[in-house]
Amino acid sequence: MDLETKNVNELRLLAVDMIERANSGHPGIALGSAPILYALYSKVLNVVPEDDKNILRDRFIMSAGHGSSIYYAMLHAFGYKISLNDLKSFRKLDSITPGHPEYGAVPGVDATTGPLGQGVSMAVGMALAERIMAKRFNKADITLFDNYTYTLVGEGCLMEGVSYEALSLAGTLKLNKLIVLYDCNGITLDSSTKSVMDQNILGYFKSLNFSTIEVEDGNDVEGIIQAINVAKQSKDKPTFIKINTHIGYGSALQDSNKAHGSVLGADNVKLLRETLGVTSEPFELDKNVLRDLKFLSKRFDGVKKSFKERMKVYSKAYPGDYKVLNEFLNMDTIKAEQVLADLNISEDMSGRDMGGLVLNKLAEVYSNLICGAADVCGSTKVNIKNSGFINDDFANKNIKYGIREFGMGCISNGLALYGGLVPVNSTFLVFSDYMKSAMRLSALMGQKVISVFTHDSIAVGEDGATHQSSEQMWGIRNIPHTYLFRPANLAETKAAYLTALSKNNPTTIVLSRQKLKNIASDVDMAKRGGYILSPEGGTLNGVIIATGSEVGLALDVQAELKSKGYNVRVVSMPSVELFKEQPLKYRNDVIPTNIKSVFSIEAGASGGWYEFTGRFGKCFAVDEFGASAPYQEIYNKFGLTSEIISKEIMQVIKNNKEKTI
Amino acid sequence: MDLETKNVNELRLLAVDMIERANSGHPGIALGSAPILYALYSKVLNVVPEDDKNILRDRFIMSAGHGSSIYYAMLHAFGYKISLNDLKSFRKLDSITPGHPEYGAVPGVDATTGPLGQGVSMAVGMALAERIMAKRFNKADITLFDNYTYTLVGEGCLMEGVSYEALSLAGTLKLNKLIVLYDCNGITLDSSTKSVMDQNILGYFKSLNFSTIEVEDGNDVEGIIQAINVAKQSKDKPTFIKINTHIGYGSALQDSNKAHGSVLGADNVKLLRETLGVTSEPFELDKNVLRDLKFLSKRFDGVKKSFKERMKVYSKAYPGDYKVLNEFLNMDTIKAEQVLADLNISEDMSGRDMGGLVLNKLAEVYSNLICGAADVCGSTKVNIKNSGFINDDFANKNIKYGIREFGMGCISNGLALYGGLVPVNSTFLVFSDYMKSAMRLSALMGQKVISVFTHDSIAVGEDGATHQSSEQMWGIRNIPHTYLFRPANLAETKAAYLTALSKNNPTTIVLSRQKLKNIASDVDMAKRGGYILSPEGGTLNGVIIATGSEVGLALDVQAELKSKGYNVRVVSMPSVELFKEQPLKYRNDVIPTNIKSVFSIEAGASGGWYEFTGRFGKCFAVDEFGASAPYQEIYNKFGLTSEIISKEIMQVIKNNKEKTI
Repeated sequence: MDLETKNVNELRLLAVDMIERANSGHPGIALGSAPILYALYSKVLNVVPEDDKNILRDRFIMSAGHGSSIYYAMLHAFGYKISLNDLKSFRKLDSITPGHPEYGAVPGVDATTGPLGQGVSMAVGMALAERIMAKRFNKADITLFDNYTYTLVGEGCLMEGVSYEALSLAGTLKLNKLIVLYDCNGITLDSSTKSVMDQNILGYFKSLNFSTIEVEDGNDVEGIIQAINVAKQSKDKPTFIKINTHIGYGSALQDSNKAHGSVLGADNVKLLRETLGVTSEPFELDKNVLRDLKFLSKRFDGVKKSFKERMKVYSKAYPGDYKVLNEFLNMDTIKAEQVLADLNISEDMSGRDMGGLVLNKLAEVYSNLICGAADVCGSTKVNIKNSGFINDDFANKNIKYGIREFGMGCISNGLALYGGLVPVNSTFLVFSDYMKSAMRLSALMGQKVISVFTHDSIAVGEDGATHQSSEQMWGIRNIPHTYLFRPANLAETKAAYLTALSKNNPTTIVLSRQKLKNIASDVDMAKRGGYILSPEGGTLNGVIIATGSEVGLALDVQAELKSKGYNVRVVSMPSVELFKEQPLKYRNDVIPTNIKSVFSIEAGASGGWYEFTGRFGKCFAVDEFGASAPYQEIYNKFGLTSEIISKEIMQVIKNNKEKTI
Repeated sequence: MDLETKNVNELRLLAVDMIERANSGHPGIALGSAPILYALYSKVLNVVPEDDKNILRDRFIMSAGHGSSIYYAMLHAFGYKISLNDLKSFRKLDSITPGHPEYGAVPGVDATTGPLGQGVSMAVGMALAERIMAKRFNKADITLFDNYTYTLVGEGCLMEGVSYEALSLAGTLKLNKLIVLYDCNGITLDSSTKSVMDQNILGYFKSLNFSTIEVEDGNDVEGIIQAINVAKQSKDKPTFIKINTHIGYGSALQDSNKAHGSVLGADNVKLLRETLGVTSEPFELDKNVLRDLKFLSKRFDGVKKSFKERMKVYSKAYPGDYKVLNEFLNMDTIKAEQVLADLNISEDMSGRDMGGLVLNKLAEVYSNLICGAADVCGSTKVNIKNSGFINDDFANKNIKYGIREFGMGCISNGLALYGGLVPVNSTFLVFSDYMKSAMRLSALMGQKVISVFTHDSIAVGEDGATHQSSEQMWGIRNIPHTYLFRPANLAETKAAYLTALSKNNPTTIVLSRQKLKNIASDVDMAKRGGYILSPEGGTLNGVIIATGSEVGLALDVQAELKSKGYNVRVVSMPSVELFKEQPLKYRNDVIPTNIKSVFSIEAGASGGWYEFTGRFGKCFAVDEFGASAPYQEIYNKFGLTSEIISKEIMQVIKNNKEKTI
């Protein structure tokens, strides 16, 4: 057996040992795809294991995230900060080797994967980011950005619609430095691929404007490297490399779907060791293998040196651009505060128009905002006006994602993960459903991705129930580590963007299609998430919490109630999550605990408003599908008028009898 | 001008008149695709306008739902129960002509469309349903089911990933009676298609195993019909027909994206009338046109007669099968109650295994359950054991959807809409995110679609945060007209399925991967959604509401508290929505309003539990991403142990001091 094969086989067993010890994992892909990963790390990837976030590195996304065992084994073998003990803690609590690859938790992992289809789609975003950064910073005499993006996909990733969305855009944008490696083993969890996906896969990729290459033998490391080298020469197309592998290679379950996700067991592992000629003990590597891996890893020193040198030369030759690059990589919000301070409006304006104003103002001082929409930028106003489309020139700042919401979400994650860019994507609120899982992944990875959703309620009007959101906002608010803003005015819109820029988390900004009353308030108050917009002016009888377009309505209700002798306070709560982060005392000052009559008004599902209204207040909400009509009529239909709400509030206050508990 | 062109042009203007009057709508597609719709209704579709739900009819899905105006105009012209006044009420409150086509609301509409990509995917479901019904009921001498499914798509539908998922499966399953009509105008809302989708569309469909045809001139009605006739001859492939049209045909905005979604305005409409040679007044059709439309509609009498005759002959020749067909079409739950009454278990069992048991029992008496999974049927247990896969033979009852959650959701909607079949689909709870929008559409259309989501919490364990749900359950509960069940035991699992079968709404059943304690309870109580599982046995100090796997934990907490002198009641609430439908008195009996200390325990987001716990109780929840470890350790990490919860509950009860308000 040659040393290369020996190396691969020992790493195969290392992965299998991890799975056995965890008593959980996916041996099938570990055994089948090992040579592909080995090819990448031994000879292809220009990375720096000890500096695994180096901006100039090649990216690799293990889109088939269930291959985590072999992935971690490979990272360990090639010098990433993953020890043998870490491998032994595979899938254990608080280890750095969780069940699926997690960005941030695992050194060397470029994206969190596991939810199929999203890894390859994020890879498209990263390949796009490289083109954008290259266009912005590369010079005639210095090519600063020049990395490739590799991703390993299985049948699962290719069946998921999101991969089609992203890959179709990758072909359209001619992302030639994207290389998709297909671990083609003909097996899925439930069956052979053919019975669920009888598709000419090369023809499919050709139709999407990809170059295609096939590697007949997935154990042929040199063949894989050769194919990648051909792919790297592509000038105007991304490349798809089909590599024919065997799931569970070498084991008794080879080529069977049983090899996919079940632990092999001691007997099978013993047999496997024999078949693959691995004589070392579990979790041990042969000393020749160790020596060779060490030798192979030496090339990373050269990569590190060249990256350092390249950056140094650049910083001297182009100090101004170098400064900008550092601003991209280390954003602060000082300039944002300054530039927004002067922005004012004097008339009523729709939420989406205010959003567009704020965004364009920010774009004056942050040239790393990459805006875009799923074919509705004219409607969402998420468009930098003095720039064109990236679809025409990578120097531009707006992306036409096409009608691909989920793809947009994943590509945004890839843009953010690359480093230096802040994606601002957009569509209508109801269609956030399409991209929900990508938003969850932004949050899990802690990425600064801004999603703007306009057409935020039944006020969409004539387009009807299919286009009107109800439960979407609470669906997003409930995602951990995510901030949702629904601004009522310009100050709150500013606060939304300022918060978004300051957090290493995704932020969702929900904006109205229709005009909002021009209500004055304070940006700093808005940044607390919830605040007293209009005090009760008398002994407090109740608190109304409202958001966005319903804040104006709440003020009307307050006035109406005042005329009937009731003193209620209006709290504007643009961001529930941010409000909940405020000190208890502040929160209790805004919504006193001794007041039973607490109300919420929001033209969406009541969802989590009960946290504030409790069992004795009332949520004025739309827990129904919308309707098709001019929007004022729909508000009427759902009882969202100051007359109806005032009456009901008075009734509740009366029922609660005593004003305090 | 020939009469055919005249007919088409007058209907074009009728659509434009509707949009003008509504001051809202999409003239671009109305003008461009009119000849396609005209071809279908004048010469192709075998339908019965006066009996628009006839099970034997051809189906037509306007996947490009923003073409509602021309669609309604066409339905009106060909005798559906849509009057001229209905057209005049286009996009008005409570009209039967809403902004986008809605199933149930608009006569002749076979599916609700507007959310792009889903219409064509539902069409795949309908074409599959035809194959299933044909296999079940057709005989050597009588072909009962024999309809075609047509769908009109635009670029938007083809860019959406869900269409790829569904179409890929359609090609794999050789759904030869599916005919996809592509209104190819080269324009999307934001731009020309090429800059966002530079794709060889015919090559794409060929790779998916479709036959492809191109019609050069989209105004050539005869050419369109000819292409369809060729498509109808296809024996083993679905057909894709690319029809080259002009967005905004005949108007000053022809071939521009400005024609897409903006009202043309009086001047432009006047010009359009002249260009298209339409002399009749707004909302009027020329009398020759009217006469010809009436003449063309005569063929529906023949269709009606032949359907009636076919069914009559069938009922006489095969009375047994005819009876079964009627049972398919008019399901009751009597047999379900009977067959489940005998089902018992004596040991601890996982939720998913209980689900599998109940489902297989039901399958004994309902042969119209069509089960399936997105490549995880081995894990979800949504699999009828004595049947094989539809992928191999349409006589079977299980579908391997492939790794296509959203496609599965839409195809399920199509199966349900066809009539006679009840789809039961499944995946892991966290991946319900991928198909959320399809679930919303099931609810909007009032379709009996059952979604089973297993691996329902952090108890997934080793697979880690990417595979563990948190906010998903509340996301689904917040969808209007949807029931979510999270059963704690066999009785509640039975109640879940019984409810699902009895409702003309979607039902989601959320099941555990891990074993649950074998807790006894009553099916009829479970059907109330929430009930007292274990009374307090003393003066009530607090109420614990729990679901699914946490009901066992709640009972432990109850016992622990009892030992400390606190009497708490355990309420099992498998379905929040169903509980909220119970009479107020019942609800107050279960959760008395004079008790401040109300708690919820559910290993997911706290979300809407506050509706019950109020501001003085506490939610024991997981408002965080999960972790990768054996699941008991994760429960510990998130404080979901009887020891921790008991302590916190005692503290809350103490804080609330007085036991009642």
